[in-house]
Parts: sequence; C-alpha cells; structure tokens
Amino acid sequence: MSFAHRVTATDGAARAGVLHTAHGTVQTPAFMPVGTAGTVKAMTADALRATGTQVLLANTYHLMLRPGAERVAALGGLHRLMDWPGPILTDSGGFQVMSLASLTQMDEGGVTFRSHLDGTPHRLTPERAVEIQHLLDATVSMVLDECTAYPATEEAARRSMERSMRWASRSRAAFVPRPGHGLFGIVQGGVHPGLRAASADALQQVGFDGYAVGGLAVGEGQAAMFGVLDCTLPLLPADRPRYLMGVGTPDDIVGAVARGIDLFDCVIPTRGGRTGRAYTSEGRLNLRNARHADDPRPLDPDCACPACIAHGRAYLHHLFKAGEMLGPMLLTWHNLHYFQSLMRILREAVAARRLADCAAALRAGWTARGGAAEEEG
Amino acid sequence: MSFAHRVTATDGAARAGVLHTAHGTVQTPAFMPVGTAGTVKAMTADALRATGTQVLLANTYHLMLRPGAERVAALGGLHRLMDWPGPILTDSGGFQVMSLASLTQMDEGGVTFRSHLDGTPHRLTPERAVEIQHLLDATVSMVLDECTAYPATEEAARRSMERSMRWASRSRAAFVPRPGHGLFGIVQGGVHPGLRAASADALQQVGFDGYAVGGLAVGEGQAAMFGVLDCTLPLLPADRPRYLMGVGTPDDIVGAVARGIDLFDCVIPTRGGRTGRAYTSEGRLNLRNARHADDPRPLDPDCACPACIAHGRAYLHHLFKAGEMLGPMLLTWHNLHYFQSLMRILREAVAARRLADCAAALRAGWTARGGAAEEEG
Repeated sequence: MSFAHRVTATDGAARAGVLHTAHGTVQTPAFMPVGTAGTVKAMTADALRATGTQVLLANTYHLMLRPGAERVAALGGLHRLMDWPGPILTDSGGFQVMSLASLTQMDEGGVTFRSHLDGTPHRLTPERAVEIQHLLDATVSMVLDECTAYPATEEAARRSMERSMRWASRSRAAFVPRPGHGLFGIVQGGVHPGLRAASADALQQVGFDGYAVGGLAVGEGQAAMFGVLDCTLPLLPADRPRYLMGVGTPDDIVGAVARGIDLFDCVIPTRGGRTGRAYTSEGRLNLRNARHADDPRPLDPDCACPACIAHGRAYLHHLFKAGEMLGPMLLTWHNLHYFQSLMRILREAVAARRLADCAAALRAGWTARGGAAEEEG
Repeated sequence: MSFAHRVTATDGAARAGVLHTAHGTVQTPAFMPVGTAGTVKAMTADALRATGTQVLLANTYHLMLRPGAERVAALGGLHRLMDWPGPILTDSGGFQVMSLASLTQMDEGGVTFRSHLDGTPHRLTPERAVEIQHLLDATVSMVLDECTAYPATEEAARRSMERSMRWASRSRAAFVPRPGHGLFGIVQGGVHPGLRAASADALQQVGFDGYAVGGLAVGEGQAAMFGVLDCTLPLLPADRPRYLMGVGTPDDIVGAVARGIDLFDCVIPTRGGRTGRAYTSEGRLNLRNARHADDPRPLDPDCACPACIAHGRAYLHHLFKAGEMLGPMLLTWHNLHYFQSLMRILREAVAARRLADCAAALRAGWTARGGAAEEEG
C-alpha cells in the first residue's frame, strides 16, 4: 500500500490519525502551508519546522515553468532544493492554469496554455501532470482535474466533473506506485449532491490513496461548503485520508474537521502575514491600523512564536508602515504558528472526544474581544 | 569613564580589543550591520545573533521620522523594540538629512528639512540629535556633523569641518554621561591631511569616548581613503575606539583594520543580499546570473550559514529570479555571516601577529577562482 493511514480517534464525524509516508509521518488533521514556487513565502525551512508544520504544498504549475520540473529533478528533487525532507503534496497545476495562464484551451486530451511569466506555450495532460509531480519527487501527487467555473449550471458542472473523472483514471494509470508515495483523486460536482456522489463513486471505482474535495472556497460561502462536505464525506472510504483543497479560515477549518476532513491547505496565513493581517486566539487583527502604533502588547498573549515572544504590536505596526521585510517575515511566522497550534488543539480535542466544546471555546475567543470588529480594518 | 576599551593585541598599526558597554562587550575589530529603521532588513534578531553580530547601527533620521523618538522611548527603547539587548550605535542623522530629505537648509544652529516620507518640516540641531539618541537608548551616540560635499575645495572642506567641530562641542555638552554609554566625535576634513589633523586635534580638545573617521567612501576611491587613514589614525588616542563610517567591501575592511580601525558599518552585505550579490571566500557572485541555474554547489564551501548548509546556488538563483523573499533573506544572512566571519578571522590574525599573511591569503581567495570576473555580472 502506498500509505498507511491509521485513524487513531474519532469524535462524531471528526477523525484524528497518523499518515505514514516515505518522507515521515503526519499527525492529522493537518494544515499544509503553501510553498508555491518552492518556498513558503518569507519563511526559512527552519522557521517552518519551528511552527510545527509537518507537510507542505507546492504548485506544479509554477514549478514546471520556473525552475522547470526536469531541472528540479536534476538538482535532487524538491525536498533537497527546499531543505524540506518531510512530506510534500503537489497540486496538479490545473487550478493555476485556469487562474494564471493566458490563451488557455481545454480539450479532452488536456490543456494548452501560455506561461504568465514569458508567454511560452505549454501543454498539461493528466499524464504529464503526474510525470511532473514524479520529477518534483512529490510525496502526494494530485490528479489533473478541470476546475469547474462557479457558479455553473448543473449540466455544466456535470460535464466538467465527468471529464475530471476520465482524467483521474488517466492520472492513476500514469502514476508509478512507490512505497510511501500516493496519488489522490479529487471529488468534483460543484454544489450538487448528486454530482458529488457520482464523482465520489467514480473515483472509488478507480481507487486512490486519498480523496480530495475540490471546487470549494470559490465563492459559494461557508454554509454551502459545509453542505457539500456533509453529503460527500460519508461516501468516501473511512480508511483513506481526506483533503479539503484551498480551505480556509480558522472557522472553516474547525467546521471541516468536525465533518471528517484530515488535510487542509490555504494561503490565508501566509498571504495575510504579508499584508498585515494577523490571526490570533482573540480574532483577526489588521496591523496596519493606527490603533496599534503605541501598543506594546504581543499580538497574541497565548502565542509562543518569535513575533509574540520578542516584540509588541507597535513594532509590527511600524514594520508594516515602513515596508520592512521583517514585518511579513514575523507575521507569516506567527500566522503559521497559530494555524499549526489550532490543528494541534483540534487533534487533541478529537482524541479527547471534546471537539464540540473545543470549537465553541475557540469561536468564543475569536469574537470576545472585538477581533471580529477589526475584520473590516 | 563611559566605556572601557581594552586593546588586547596589536600587529603593526592594527589592534584587537574589547569594548565594554552597558549592553555587553564587543570584540574589536567589529562590523556593525545597518538597521536603518529599527530592523536589519530581512533579518530576525535571532538570525542576526546567529551570524556572530555583536553590535548594530541604527539611523536617527529614519527613526525620528517613523516611528518617532518619543514613541520609541515610550515603548522601552530601541533594544526592547528590536529584541536586541546588545549594543546599538546610532548615527546622528546628518548624513541622511543631506541625502534623503528635501528643502534642506543648513545654518549655524542646525539643519531644517522636510521629511522624505510625508513632507513634514523638522529641525535637527546638535542638541536635538543627542536628545533623540538618548530617547532611542543608544549605547553609542554620534555627534551631529555637516557632511562635506565630495569633491570640495580645501576652503569649502575647511569651513564645513570647522562647523562640524563647533557642533561636536555642542553635542558633547548636550550628552548626558551614563555608565557604559558613550559619544563619539567625527574627524572630518575631506582628503586634506592638514584639515584632518586640525579636526582630530579639535575633537580631542573636547574629549570623546571614541573617534570616528567620517566623510569617506563617498567616491574618493580606496587609495585616497587609506591615505586619509594613514595620516589621521596616528593622531587619535590609542586607548579609544576608532570607527570608520560607512565602510566597506571586505578588501576595504582588511586594509582599514591593518591601519588601526576598530569599528565598521556598511550596507554592502545587506543591500547586496537583497539584490543577489553574494560575498564569499572566493570573491563576489551575482546570483541573478544564469550560470548558477543548474549549479548545486553551496555559495561558499567554507561557510556554515543556513544558505550554504541547506541550499545550493541553483535554488538561490531560482529564488531571485522568482522574486521570492526567501532569496534576500538567505543571502543577507549569508553575507552578514561572511562579514562577521571575516572580522573574527581578522581579530585572530591580529592576536597572532599574522595579519599581513592573513590579508594576503584572503585577497588570494577573492581573486583565485574568477570571483572578481563576476563583479560585472
């Protein structure tokens, strides 16, 4: 078997477990910071490790264009390049092709596009996407899928999902199994329960090492997203990891863990860290806000990251106002530390069968001291 | 006495010693990274400590404008703000006023200018410059001086130097002595030995805790700079630290240490780190150069910094081409590590009375493998 995924505790639909990979173990539920171009922006590998990060995500689209998949392979793979011996999950490139590339043309065989960097033409097929991920030395590879537009009619969502299922089969056929490596299928079908069920079934006919839920966090709202999870997750095999792609806020994560998700990735902590947005146990803060200019308090009194241990809000505010790189560096570190601490809290709550209480306490903290009020800041 | 400065070894004109300050000791000769706005760009305080940095420089001009000297004081001072309990030297702001501010008007009392940030009017006098440095909690404060234009006629250089000497007296009078804190005078006089001698004499009539050589590295060239050191340093008291402001390249530093300089500051390692310029034991490299794209070797085989231990040139090249913050972060770290290692090597060479051999070996390394050829890259 590609992976051993052992579910060690459950609390309602929520699960805690351990994923054993060729590059080490991952305690689930786990959050994967996004290392788009072979680096989690503003973070050294040592800093990432210090946040409690266990597994990273990297983007096939960016890396195939620069520095190039064959070059990464010649340099010893992405783990070696990034100084990240731990597990790395790579996406298939499909989502970025649709959102970043130009002159994109989709056909049954794959997708042709021009690089957003230099206009050079490229083609991505299910087979090439898997090959690139092999060259990158991904621990977990993802099938190439077609990103369904949102909103879409049910008929359009069906056609898109069905093509993605054919591509999933081709991806599986192209994937070279190796111990401790795996390929995940992606459930599509928009917000339509029937399509989600058909997609979950089609993927299991092929058989994957894990199952992702795709096509969410694209504007449908948290309630619709949770609705899709509620109807989809019971249809997936209990012994395989489940990955909710591109999600989300701390509140999204708590709700998705409660519904049975094991893996997350999102740019929220890293993008927020670069733009002055802090996630804390007391809610979200905008460090560019002048109210912080004279405030010596740490970002989060409960946090042990270097930003909170060594500095106050006034200094972080100053760094952002002055456009100093140290602002994004410290705040990215803090946000990832916060997200990883949140995941640890959730794992422990599932193990103790106290997830509902834990979630209520977390949510109370986020809103108690006006954190939510600053969301607009 | 403000500082104990103990010269522990000499080798020709070169000295090694220990400066004892209220914020800790500094082994000299020492290099001070530049922390302009209260942060050494792209470096956490922990990373700075890991490079072997003992003392930082911060800029009065930038900090008086943002976040403001009174605000820094209210927040506990610059050491607390930056998480740098060690010594900090602050410049007086004069140089940045002349190079950055607009509508600058100089008179005998001081200098009036408009902030380059928001156009607000400000005035800096010798007394206010010292007061600001007190508010920042500087370990070493610098007198306000007038930056002599280069090139300048001897008469213009004399008039400028003489005003700077009057300002030095006023700075001294305004300075509040505290144990382990000190005020440095600045020798001016351009490239004119007679003016340098008059300036050195005038400062010693007042009496300072250390003596800086200012007005160099402004385009006069290394030979002229060394000429000024050769004629000036013998005129300064042997028991006080000597600081060469704004210098320099590794080769400049070696030559200035040989002539008796104890302290340096320069943006070269940090600015170079942000622009892809690496300083190594084999010379200078431009990491943006395509020749590095497939090169797995570390930047410097002799270096133990995180960039060299964990990554190769190809990855650093990729980070700079992709505009990733991690490139400047790793390369700034490397360059500072290299500069601090150089200072340690020089201190050990002076102690062993082997500085001439050491300097020759360093210079041979910088040019042996084509490092110099890449200077143009």
